[in-house]
Amino acid sequence: MLFQVQMNVRIPHDLDAAKADALKNAERERAQELQRSGIWRHLWRHAGRYANTSIFDVEGTQELHDILSALPLFPFMDIEVTPLCRHPSSVHADDR
Amino acid sequence: MLFQVQMNVRIPHDLDAAKADALKNAERERAQELQRSGIWRHLWRHAGRYANTSIFDVEGTQELHDILSALPLFPFMDIEVTPLCRHPSSVHADDR
Amino acid sequence: MLFQVQMNVRIPHDLDAAKADALKNAERERAQELQRSGIWRHLWRHAGRYANTSIFDVEGTQELHDILSALPLFPFMDIEVTPLCRHPSSVHADDR
Amino acid sequence: MLFQVQMNVRIPHDLDAAKADALKNAERERAQELQRSGIWRHLWRHAGRYANTSIFDVEGTQELHDILSALPLFPFMDIEVTPLCRHPSSVHADDR
Amino acid sequence: MLFQVQMNVRIPHDLDAAKADALKNAERERAQELQRSGIWRHLWRHAGRYANTSIFDVEGTQELHDILSALPLFPFMDIEVTPLCRHPSSVHADDR
Amino acid sequence: MLFQVQMNVRIPHDLDAAKADALKNAERERAQELQRSGIWRHLWRHAGRYANTSIFDVEGTQELHDILSALPLFPFMDIEVTPLCRHPSSVHADDR
Amino acid sequence: MLFQVQMNVRIPHDLDAAKADALKNAERERAQELQRSGIWRHLWRHAGRYANTSIFDVEGTQELHDILSALPLFPFMDIEVTPLCRHPSSVHADDR
Amino acid sequence: MLFQVQMNVRIPHDLDAAKADALKNAERERAQELQRSGIWRHLWRHAGRYANTSIFDVEGTQELHDILSALPLFPFMDIEVTPLCRHPSSVHADDR
Amino acid sequence: MLFQVQMNVRIPHDLDAAKADALKNAERERAQELQRSGIWRHLWRHAGRYANTSIFDVEGTQELHDILSALPLFPFMDIEVTPLCRHPSSVHADDR
Amino acid sequence: MLFQVQMNVRIPHDLDAAKADALKNAERERAQELQRSGIWRHLWRHAGRYANTSIFDVEGTQELHDILSALPLFPFMDIEVTPLCRHPSSVHADDR
Repeated sequence: MLFQVQMNVRIPHDLDAAKADALKNAERERAQELQRSGIWRHLWRHAGRYANTSIFDVEGTQELHDILSALPLFPFMDIEVTPLCRHPSSVHADDR
Repeated sequence: MLFQVQMNVRIPHDLDAAKADALKNAERERAQELQRSGIWRHLWRHAGRYANTSIFDVEGTQELHDILSALPLFPFMDIEVTPLCRHPSSVHADDR
Repeated sequence: MLFQVQMNVRIPHDLDAAKADALKNAERERAQELQRSGIWRHLWRHAGRYANTSIFDVEGTQELHDILSALPLFPFMDIEVTPLCRHPSSVHADDR
Repeated sequence: MLFQVQMNVRIPHDLDAAKADALKNAERERAQELQRSGIWRHLWRHAGRYANTSIFDVEGTQELHDILSALPLFPFMDIEVTPLCRHPSSVHADDR
Repeated sequence: MLFQVQMNVRIPHDLDAAKADALKNAERERAQELQRSGIWRHLWRHAGRYANTSIFDVEGTQELHDILSALPLFPFMDIEVTPLCRHPSSVHADDR
Repeated sequence: MLFQVQMNVRIPHDLDAAKADALKNAERERAQELQRSGIWRHLWRHAGRYANTSIFDVEGTQELHDILSALPLFPFMDIEVTPLCRHPSSVHADDR
Repeated sequence: MLFQVQMNVRIPHDLDAAKADALKNAERERAQELQRSGIWRHLWRHAGRYANTSIFDVEGTQELHDILSALPLFPFMDIEVTPLCRHPSSVHADDR
Repeated sequence: MLFQVQMNVRIPHDLDAAKADALKNAERERAQELQRSGIWRHLWRHAGRYANTSIFDVEGTQELHDILSALPLFPFMDIEVTPLCRHPSSVHADDR
Repeated sequence: MLFQVQMNVRIPHDLDAAKADALKNAERERAQELQRSGIWRHLWRHAGRYANTSIFDVEGTQELHDILSALPLFPFMDIEVTPLCRHPSSVHADDR
Repeated sequence: MLFQVQMNVRIPHDLDAAKADALKNAERERAQELQRSGIWRHLWRHAGRYANTSIFDVEGTQELHDILSALPLFPFMDIEVTPLCRHPSSVHADDR
């Protein structure tokens, strides 16, 4: 089941720099692990912004929440979730 | 080059029903043609809304505009365009 | 899987009155059928507004969309969908 | 009498970690106590966000305020309250 | 129990003038009847706008909805409802 | 002359606790003094929020500003002012 | 007493042209009459928009409403009212 | 003097098609005349939208208004005006 | 040339009190100097808010920016600028 | 390929002054370098605000992001990107 997730990252300027770097590194590692597993299907940067559009392929809303809320940068993200489904004009039986 | 396009369709209730159907059919045909050509990479319905998230793969902004503004339902759509690029944490050299 | 759905109904004043009544009656019938089947778990009116908060219990996003987009008043509704999951402080294993 | 309450929690990053944990634990305990008493009827997490939708069943607006404003995390919540009532299409005499 | 109700009236310019006048007259009559009964406690015009702030004193959310949704101009109003209660700094035991 | 004033209070979490308490106490005292004088006609809490709706009865805009800007919590409030006047459907010559 | 009034005019495209012209002429006449009387102190066009900023000098909120709601184009205006008073840094005892 | 002007065009679907075409043709002619005169310095389409960003080079706010309000499509445009000036980091004495 | 400027002042609560006072004093002095020179034509306080509406009479956008950006409280202001011009219904050749 | 970029700069008042100056100087140098290379085609200050409208001429969305995200003040900017293309009424084959 697909969900579109838009993440806007806002790291406070007074966060300790070493802590911020550690969080970003942990975030990258986790993001890549989830991409490799097929759960984080797409990950695109918004040009010119510290933001991304992601497509998650999960069992359901519980798995989606468990994954997102455990992301290292979760406390510094504004997240919008849009549930997706097949578009009647799609040429794909299953567009992932 | 990828662009995220969110389309919200608002067909006025007093539009002639036959005309509305013709426009929707033409829209579907054109959407499928563009999907087959690889330009309209992804097309997902927003669950519960007359709206979609689409990913277009075009040469640039001019081609994007020429395609979107020629869609049969263009006059009845609110469209938001977000330019995308590779995310530094993407595991793909080229995520399409 | 639970989704919160907020529906705001806006019936144009120049819609034919008989047609409007027919749509409202069909909407009520369908809403009751879906409540009896257990899919439309909760249906509450917003006091003082032509709006409601509903909780749907569906297999996933596709079923949710198929149901909502087929509602008789769908063309006259503004709909917001919020995917829900278990709250870690819930005392229920499964709060429906 | 039912009220829908949406809570968005924003804990400042520079709040003392031990204090934050104590507040969260107290919040959970109080939430569970109120659920067991039947006042906090439903409590659902918004998938992907530090937010919830809750349904409160109270005597009236005064009891609602006394309960919400005494929640341990109240100073860190943005709260929206929507008064609910029976929907004319509900199949339940009393949908709680 | 008190609720603050803000009503913005938007009468479409193409509504039949006689029908509009009839609705406004019926609205005034009903508003005065409800004021005399003590339910519609206060009714103030917003200076310079076709809008008002009202304070309703009702048994609960159901009575509030039944009254508001039966107002003759209800279909042409945008309504915001704010549940009120006693303010801890109020010098009145019961400020109506 | 009546003005509706909506106050949303946002006290920063890192404000000194003793100072915050002193401000709140001073605010309460001043609010009660103004209520007793008849200037602060009504004061209602928004259920579930650190906010209120107030009705002020003043000579004019200058007195309103002098009073509001001198409130102890003024620096921590978002304030919206709506000028009110008699509603043509009011049954009162002077609804205060 | 001064009030700032921002008026955005939206005349529906399907309003009868002769009626629209008559309303605009009547509006101009009334605006000039009120300017000459000193009540409509300032009247400035927003460059590039069918909108204006006006400063009204009235006895109070009731007079303001009586004047604004009787303007010929009132039904086609979105109006925002901001109550003004003397600024402590003003070099004028009375800036009109 | 430079002003940035963003125009969003919304032509009602029930406007007579011949009239709409005549307006669009007149708009194009006028836009080109103003570009040739150097007043309408830049004119860019927003990719995927019936909207543009324009840069006007005028004597002042009065000339700007006279030009914009006389555009054939002016009644169907939402217009935002942003006054511009030289940026301190500009490498141009006069960036037009 | 006239510009309407709305300034909302937000002084952070943790700004040094002496520094804040010095900035406010410098702001008042500069505001009075500019009023005396005829550039800052009008300065009105918004009743109940730390905000003002000002009318500036300047040579153009560059002078406006140079003046506003040099105000002592500029870093703590949200500013909205609206370019003004003569209203066709104004009874004044030049309304300042 | 052209993109319109609107930048709003918000430098926190508690950022170290020397660090802020160093960032601003580095920003100016980089902005001038990019202007000289032809990539940062236009750079205009919004009169009265710490904001600008810029036109970038880049190969595509990736180059745009690489440039913007490397700006020294990027962490303190709110950025909006609008993809542009040729306007059908432009008199220029290529308006840069």
